[in-house]
Amino acid sequence: MTSSPTAGARPDEVRRHNRTALLRRLHVGGPCTRAALATELGLNRSTIKALVDGLAESGVVEERVPRLRSGAGRPSLLVLPRSHAAVVLAVDIRVEQVAIALVGLGGEMLARNSWNLHGRARDPDELITHVIESTRVLVDDLGVRMTGVGVSVPGVVRRRDGFVHEAPNLRWSGIPLGDRLGVALAAPVRVANDAEIAALAEHLRGAARGSLDAVYVSADIGVGGGVISDGSTLRGTAGYVGELGHMVVNPAGRACYCGSRGCWETEVGELALCRALDLPEHSPRGMVVAELRALAQRPELAAARLGEFREWLTLGLVNIVNAFGPELVVLGDLFTALPPALVAEVGAEVGRRSLVSRAIGGTRVLASAMGSDVKLVGAAELAFEPVLDMV
Amino acid sequence: MTSSPTAGARPDEVRRHNRTALLRRLHVGGPCTRAALATELGLNRSTIKALVDGLAESGVVEERVPRLRSGAGRPSLLVLPRSHAAVVLAVDIRVEQVAIALVGLGGEMLARNSWNLHGRARDPDELITHVIESTRVLVDDLGVRMTGVGVSVPGVVRRRDGFVHEAPNLRWSGIPLGDRLGVALAAPVRVANDAEIAALAEHLRGAARGSLDAVYVSADIGVGGGVISDGSTLRGTAGYVGELGHMVVNPAGRACYCGSRGCWETEVGELALCRALDLPEHSPRGMVVAELRALAQRPELAAARLGEFREWLTLGLVNIVNAFGPELVVLGDLFTALPPALVAEVGAEVGRRSLVSRAIGGTRVLASAMGSDVKLVGAAELAFEPVLDMV
Repeated sequence: MTSSPTAGARPDEVRRHNRTALLRRLHVGGPCTRAALATELGLNRSTIKALVDGLAESGVVEERVPRLRSGAGRPSLLVLPRSHAAVVLAVDIRVEQVAIALVGLGGEMLARNSWNLHGRARDPDELITHVIESTRVLVDDLGVRMTGVGVSVPGVVRRRDGFVHEAPNLRWSGIPLGDRLGVALAAPVRVANDAEIAALAEHLRGAARGSLDAVYVSADIGVGGGVISDGSTLRGTAGYVGELGHMVVNPAGRACYCGSRGCWETEVGELALCRALDLPEHSPRGMVVAELRALAQRPELAAARLGEFREWLTLGLVNIVNAFGPELVVLGDLFTALPPALVAEVGAEVGRRSLVSRAIGGTRVLASAMGSDVKLVGAAELAFEPVLDMV
Repeated sequence: MTSSPTAGARPDEVRRHNRTALLRRLHVGGPCTRAALATELGLNRSTIKALVDGLAESGVVEERVPRLRSGAGRPSLLVLPRSHAAVVLAVDIRVEQVAIALVGLGGEMLARNSWNLHGRARDPDELITHVIESTRVLVDDLGVRMTGVGVSVPGVVRRRDGFVHEAPNLRWSGIPLGDRLGVALAAPVRVANDAEIAALAEHLRGAARGSLDAVYVSADIGVGGGVISDGSTLRGTAGYVGELGHMVVNPAGRACYCGSRGCWETEVGELALCRALDLPEHSPRGMVVAELRALAQRPELAAARLGEFREWLTLGLVNIVNAFGPELVVLGDLFTALPPALVAEVGAEVGRRSLVSRAIGGTRVLASAMGSDVKLVGAAELAFEPVLDMV
């Protein structure tokens, strides 16, 4: 239930609302005929015609004869977004690497760059300067105007202004990242937690597409989660998202930097996986992934080595499903390297043990298929949100 | 972020939207001048005049000279909702008692009845029949037409149709409560989980009024929670709400009926409190409350007896705050009898241990002040939601 629509709406908002809805549909869903747009958006054909004509006139969309014609008769024209009509910058800041990309309307990556972080490169000033300079090069090369910026950060971020409260694995604290990038790049900047960004990407372009209630959880050094609830990203006070990695699952467990003991992150994060695999903590990511993939071929060894890890993963997911009631949980980052049999077992066990999952008729648990660009894709979508209102 | 407003809006929806917003403001906030309505709703005076005139003509509101006049000059008329213009039925089903009330526009309880449950009275057929008969008596006595029904149930409820999947402490399972009441009472029926209903009541008329992000948690035999996120009730797939009482906090703890071990409910519910207080499990509620109140005067004994309970309460709240990022947690039911000093200590500890609470600048934890009618109030508001669109 929406409990309090307290503000009134004026008729002059309606046209803009419809235009944004149409543009969003084309941006996320790809080319579409006018007739299909009318059906999908619940608008009549003359409204669609007026909107498409207006957008075509300003160069935001174009119309083309489809290559594959269905049946005889006059073909229905396809409406396509023009990628250069709106270009945003996506920035994915990770602990080991930064990637940036210019992404056009419709989601195509038009240009990209990335660099590894070591030594001073992780320092906020250095990193921000490098992002700004690399962006200028990309923008000049492509000859476009950038209309928005989306940034993914592995940390606790205040959405209102992109203030990074804490990003422990970057050793950042109190960095006004949104303001600094906004001033330098002269474009609106949105910064969000990386798991929230990945959840948005999965929701718009990945496994959770069409799912109103889904949770994305991922493991790196840290463990994070993003929640899609009734089709929107779930946020708390001041726009901060939850920190699912700091749910305490094992009160008798290890101390976590956050001040609690036995956080989910300490039981299922990368360091916990290293311990389970008998690797030194902080082993190179490639080695951890290789060991996990090797275990997929050896189920008995996998059961022995990952038994405890599996139990903590299950327990955390039972709690998450009992809290949010998602129909789908997408596992990202390092979790995508887990043996598929283990993921299937965890999914089945969550379905058995979660009261809410039983009520809603089950919760699917599966590994992300979006690959390592997921946060770049999500950061672009974050940037596009306000842009689609304005182009 | 709202990620996908995919449907278009038509101008003919605007007037109705404004009318509902105005009515909701009067219903929840009470009498208000036209000028203040215009300011609060962001609408111009002529729109407000047209809406109020229309509502007055159909007998939904009236205008009166205020008793207290501010300054000289012509007094501004107050717009008041007329309670008999829309009357709903609120039903609060608890483990020990059922209460029903007819509630008018503006929130006034116009008539009420309640009865205790023992023996066969808890049987779904008996209980439903009793609710229907008692309602008919109240409606006849008052001579009103009932335009909606809201029902609070201590269980797992599918919001779409009011199907009670499971209500363990009533020993109910698979009861089509919404459909059965709807047919018998010939009015739209909404059924929801009791903690969700209480959260709604606190949000509209209690401690969480004006708070966009708040969580209500309460203890009875079961422990439940309701989440207000960005001003609306949080729900998962198919409208089921989360079951915060079945978050596992102590994997080494007692078996719970849900299939997990060490659920929050098993550590902080009424039975856990009985054990902490050295009372037999299932002691009368009055005795548990009396013991808790007595401890408020004896801090050392309280610390000794409730130390472990306090730790589990804190741990569960840290997890809840880390998951949802609320600025406020309201403790209900049996938790309202906890020594105030203990509640204060728990609140301070949650603020220290929750990463998210530290980021958002703290989370207040306080006991509900709405008393035992909270679920009846919430059930009425649930019933009013669609009604305000239509009166």
